[in-house]
Amino acid sequence: MAKLTTRSEDYSKWYNELVVKADLAENSGVRGCMVIKPYGYAIWEKMRDELDKKFKETGHQNAYFPLFVPKSLFEAEEKNAEGFAKECAVVTHYRLKTDPNNPQKLIVDPDAKLEEELIVRPTSEAIIWSTYKNWIQSYRDLPILINQWANVVRWEMRTRLFLRTAEFLWQEGHTAHVTKEEAIEETEKMNNVYAEFAEKFMAIPVIKGLKSPSERFAGADETYCIEALMQDGKALQAGTSHFLGQNFPKAFDVKYTSKEGKQEYPWATSWGTSTRLMGALIMTHSDDLGLVLPPSLAPIQVVIVPIFKGDEQLAQITEVASDIVAKLKAKGISVKFDDDTQNKPGWKFAEYELKGVPVRMAIGPKDLENGTVEIARRDNLTKESQPLVNIDVYIENLLTTIQHDVFAKALNFRDTHITKVDSYEEFKKVLEEKGGFIYAHWDGTEEEEEQIKDETKATIRCIPLDDDIEEGVSMITGKPSARRVLFAKAY
Amino acid sequence: MAKLTTRSEDYSKWYNELVVKADLAENSGVRGCMVIKPYGYAIWEKMRDELDKKFKETGHQNAYFPLFVPKSLFEAEEKNAEGFAKECAVVTHYRLKTDPNNPQKLIVDPDAKLEEELIVRPTSEAIIWSTYKNWIQSYRDLPILINQWANVVRWEMRTRLFLRTAEFLWQEGHTAHVTKEEAIEETEKMNNVYAEFAEKFMAIPVIKGLKSPSERFAGADETYCIEALMQDGKALQAGTSHFLGQNFPKAFDVKYTSKEGKQEYPWATSWGTSTRLMGALIMTHSDDLGLVLPPSLAPIQVVIVPIFKGDEQLAQITEVASDIVAKLKAKGISVKFDDDTQNKPGWKFAEYELKGVPVRMAIGPKDLENGTVEIARRDNLTKESQPLVNIDVYIENLLTTIQHDVFAKALNFRDTHITKVDSYEEFKKVLEEKGGFIYAHWDGTEEEEEQIKDETKATIRCIPLDDDIEEGVSMITGKPSARRVLFAKAY
Repeated sequence: MAKLTTRSEDYSKWYNELVVKADLAENSGVRGCMVIKPYGYAIWEKMRDELDKKFKETGHQNAYFPLFVPKSLFEAEEKNAEGFAKECAVVTHYRLKTDPNNPQKLIVDPDAKLEEELIVRPTSEAIIWSTYKNWIQSYRDLPILINQWANVVRWEMRTRLFLRTAEFLWQEGHTAHVTKEEAIEETEKMNNVYAEFAEKFMAIPVIKGLKSPSERFAGADETYCIEALMQDGKALQAGTSHFLGQNFPKAFDVKYTSKEGKQEYPWATSWGTSTRLMGALIMTHSDDLGLVLPPSLAPIQVVIVPIFKGDEQLAQITEVASDIVAKLKAKGISVKFDDDTQNKPGWKFAEYELKGVPVRMAIGPKDLENGTVEIARRDNLTKESQPLVNIDVYIENLLTTIQHDVFAKALNFRDTHITKVDSYEEFKKVLEEKGGFIYAHWDGTEEEEEQIKDETKATIRCIPLDDDIEEGVSMITGKPSARRVLFAKAY
Repeated sequence: MAKLTTRSEDYSKWYNELVVKADLAENSGVRGCMVIKPYGYAIWEKMRDELDKKFKETGHQNAYFPLFVPKSLFEAEEKNAEGFAKECAVVTHYRLKTDPNNPQKLIVDPDAKLEEELIVRPTSEAIIWSTYKNWIQSYRDLPILINQWANVVRWEMRTRLFLRTAEFLWQEGHTAHVTKEEAIEETEKMNNVYAEFAEKFMAIPVIKGLKSPSERFAGADETYCIEALMQDGKALQAGTSHFLGQNFPKAFDVKYTSKEGKQEYPWATSWGTSTRLMGALIMTHSDDLGLVLPPSLAPIQVVIVPIFKGDEQLAQITEVASDIVAKLKAKGISVKFDDDTQNKPGWKFAEYELKGVPVRMAIGPKDLENGTVEIARRDNLTKESQPLVNIDVYIENLLTTIQHDVFAKALNFRDTHITKVDSYEEFKKVLEEKGGFIYAHWDGTEEEEEQIKDETKATIRCIPLDDDIEEGVSMITGKPSARRVLFAKAY
């Protein structure tokens, strides 16, 4: 197994290699579309199940809406349409026929042209609000709290596995409310759900904030987000929650009769996370040996590797290992005993390091004599000998410790990569030499934002929701600034 | 709430009304595509979770492959391409632009024409086998046992909610094996998984069999299926499992090095079930009052309706009900206490009957005095008074009984609607007057099959896998027949 390119050699290459070698995903025969391989999909399933549980706990139900959006619905909400028109897959025909010039080939049947083109959903506000029109008649029909797990397509020109693909998997919540306050509360609630999920489950520290107007979702009045920091000092937006105001209700003429008998527009939100989270996971925790997974997301939490010569030793180790496996499974810990005889222990060690299995247990003849096992942690690469007695309890605690430590390490990296700067010179210097988040004043205009982006590639990741509202002046124009905002180069 | 059209009045209308009124699904603004509403989706989720568990128990892993199939891959397996070319959505462009004649409108940007058209997957053998080409090098890479949960699109001209929609949700298994025997074993195993799922979980009796050559999946050497019988005497194919031979490996040039060092083609299977199962569920069990759900599939298994006058009575009933709710939940039973004060009990009774909630519990002032509750079963509409003491144990057993009885009722209907016939006259008469499955001899030719279909609309649903291999002669041509096969009109 050839070694990975290291992060310091070429971070981008390291990422691409890791995704493929750890069997997470690969590019497909379709431009920009990925194949999510079983190991990668198993991790995504864990994320999905946990998020789904949180959505249901907060009162949401799942539903499913069509893949296609007729062009006339797509263009109804102008800003949204404008935002996605440039990168959408368009279905124009509904049939192929045999090529008259080559009976082995198929061509698009020109007689099967659709009267109205269909857009493959890049997001579902349009199709969903055109549906809600029939569902919302009275204030008693509100709130509507619906989520959808689906695939969406955005025809990105430059794609990267998980981070930016033409097709990706995601969930999108779409809610409707009687009052503006309730809709804003929902928007904030779901952004908090994302933040808690990222930190507690994925062990990824995030900063909650608001997008600047230029970075808002197309069609939103306000976009909340969670921003994470990758090891190369670039930020990654890990989830967004949009307060949509009455834009979609108005575009689709959705009104309800209020308690007072008036016709009113409801207030809307939408919120989403996607397989992009896989990219955040990889780039937050992994190292030059491969993937590092927090135990909560690991398809295999513990692997047991026997170190043996001959069948008799293997049989003895298998007996001990089977007992451990049974005890760990009883505790709900996923464990694999790798008694494959084709590959050497060293090969297996490297393989499970690459795959990010949090705990490796090696059992050799000496361990049998001493009643011990060798425990290796994937996250900090430490090894220690542990007595067999109560090993299941030890492992259970160790997994909790690892979950905590993986987060703490990422948090420490993130916190040491937030730099407060007051001059544009310093801004550029920090961006160049250190990277990470830069906490600086901004005059609130799109012009300054644009200038900074053009000159440094850094964007405003968010206006944090913390209570640090120290006033100041913009580092470029010197105009007053109500508070510092968070800049970074971003994925 | 207007009553449903009855089944005897108009079975087809009854079905359509029921699907919409019970909040399962509705037609969308996109031709032939449905919206699966939260209540319908909650039932589908239960099916999906149970099937997924069974797939994993039988050694399969989930993965995800692209939505799009480039035309050149699509046409590689000729029969498969031919089978689906006539009904597929084709993406030809990747961008919209503002209409120069009307800045409010969008048009397809002619400059953004794809070099190669993309087919929205109607099934994924082509894209998956083009991927497996890179995954399969050695016999050690086999078997590959993968399943995908996805949406697919088949541009059906006449659509009906759940039964036949342009887009539907499904799962598709795609496996690769070293030997033909192993692949056939897999095909049979998964057909058995489907049969057990249908009978034990959905309470739908099915007949396992093989499709006649003309009804096989396009690209398969053999198609196994499970066939169910609806209450109107028409059959419904509820799942299929295909032995694909080496057709796709050959079409995509997938070879591996065998133990003996030779280059060999692997053997393939694929198998699928879809949201069509929702149609089977509805048409197997439901009645003129609405949906009937086996408890295993019911999003709400028990509903408690208070019968009260005034707040004081409601408070007393709520106290008793809360205790029951807690006890049922502790047993893993999903329960809803409907203390809404806007709707009368009679309205609620009708609503929960429509929604198919298996058990309704009514609690009124008399019940409080007597320490009883009134239990109503949705499946057979019986009512009885039961003591409050140990009501949770009673309900738990009752749900098991209902699951059993719903299946038994469907089985009895199915079994009394299999008619053995020996003449074509009788065949037509039974088909006309009684419907159901007809067990008859056939000469094994496509011609006879075609003639019967043209004249009666009945098709061979399957060649059953039972051991009734009584020889005979075809009812039309008089030619010898190795065994009776199962005919029916079908959805």
